[in-house]
Amino acid sequence: MKIALIGSGNVATLLGLELGKYHQVTQVYSYNLANAQQLAWRLSAQAIDELAQLTPADVYILAVKDSVIEELAQQIVRYVGDRLVIHTSGSVDVKVLSHLPNYGVFYPLQTFSKAKPVDWLKVPLLLEANNDASLRLMRQFAVQISGRIYNYNSEQRRALHLAAVIACNFSNFLYGEAYDYLAEKQVDFDLLKSLILETAQKAVQFVPTDVQTGPAIRGDVMVLKRHSEMLADKPDLQRIYQVLSEGILQRHKSLAKNDEQ
Amino acid sequence: MKIALIGSGNVATLLGLELGKYHQVTQVYSYNLANAQQLAWRLSAQAIDELAQLTPADVYILAVKDSVIEELAQQIVRYVGDRLVIHTSGSVDVKVLSHLPNYGVFYPLQTFSKAKPVDWLKVPLLLEANNDASLRLMRQFAVQISGRIYNYNSEQRRALHLAAVIACNFSNFLYGEAYDYLAEKQVDFDLLKSLILETAQKAVQFVPTDVQTGPAIRGDVMVLKRHSEMLADKPDLQRIYQVLSEGILQRHKSLAKNDEQ
Repeated sequence: MKIALIGSGNVATLLGLELGKYHQVTQVYSYNLANAQQLAWRLSAQAIDELAQLTPADVYILAVKDSVIEELAQQIVRYVGDRLVIHTSGSVDVKVLSHLPNYGVFYPLQTFSKAKPVDWLKVPLLLEANNDASLRLMRQFAVQISGRIYNYNSEQRRALHLAAVIACNFSNFLYGEAYDYLAEKQVDFDLLKSLILETAQKAVQFVPTDVQTGPAIRGDVMVLKRHSEMLADKPDLQRIYQVLSEGILQRHKSLAKNDEQ
Repeated sequence: MKIALIGSGNVATLLGLELGKYHQVTQVYSYNLANAQQLAWRLSAQAIDELAQLTPADVYILAVKDSVIEELAQQIVRYVGDRLVIHTSGSVDVKVLSHLPNYGVFYPLQTFSKAKPVDWLKVPLLLEANNDASLRLMRQFAVQISGRIYNYNSEQRRALHLAAVIACNFSNFLYGEAYDYLAEKQVDFDLLKSLILETAQKAVQFVPTDVQTGPAIRGDVMVLKRHSEMLADKPDLQRIYQVLSEGILQRHKSLAKNDEQ
């Protein structure tokens, strides 16, 4: 299969390198030619910075920022004929491609950093297409890279993306806040590492709410108050502490209420 | 060594069962005798609900809610002579025991749920004592159960406890919010599991801030706005979404500023 890659960021790079094992990535497009060249070189592909330079491929993958997908999809229509065009975004509706004859979404649910190799076999791939032929074609290369292929529509995919931001992006932000706080207090972040891993492992093994621990779920307002005081010189973190503790307290109250019934 | 356990909750249970492998837990106290009996039975110990029933032991472990440590410590003084009394709290100062001749803190940094067995070898134990003899005695049983013993003072321990709440309790709460949201949208939470684990693994392998992903760190305000709209019927979760995204956006801006310099 011939694949043209539109984009050169984290997703384009990691997905391109994986697909390149099984298929020929013929071209890499970026509006910044140097970026396109960097990835194209690793894929023995041609780097281009004009969509007009696109040559025929079996599939065109738009792996770019959400905000530019629609615009690129509008421009690309002149060069792709009836061939498959897909984007890789969790939160952009498949409809932004609906002016094309064959289109779909290929959303890998994973956090991509160039720093860490991806274990593709475990990455859920969420597919959506406008017709069976398009879906079949996407499935064909999806099964080569992952053992977990799902067919979800745009609304479900969007819900999943939002949930992923809440569960993962926000958690990582909180890890970072803890890291900075401990650095300031000259306490080794290493101490927290097994607790961070254990918390995540518990949450996937049980129902997260069932294994909630900490002062807020115990209704221990004394500790909550002291923690809040400890953050008096960090108003942003203090606010985050209060908002999240309030959320857990609400849950604590509703649990207590259920116990009484 | 003879150990008396004051408390019968998660920490008392899991710590008591572990110490019981190497030592004789002679008594379990709880103000609720049935709770004391439940744990005492598993330890072949005596259940009591009056501190006056305490018999001589080498160490008395106060593994109770933060809010009652001080009060119990005041009452226990009449029954313990010069023997070692310790509490297991991350956030209570060692000073609440300072009216005793020998005292200390033995804080296991872990999230304890009765549902899941603890891998004690990996649990960091934070020790603090009022003199060398007390510290030595604590160390003696600490090394039997964990490979990670640290000597930290109350201020450092308190900082670590606060960081643990931020990094772990709050993350788990967010997992729970994602779980509920997906359940409502009829999307399988299983899809998020590898992402949750991957996020935690990345954060302990790298510096969390360096591997931050998601719309806020990309400065993608279009997605942030849409996510916020999707949560319009969930004002509490919407507020959490906005406060945490704002935190990440601030970080994004300071990163962008550094890049410019």
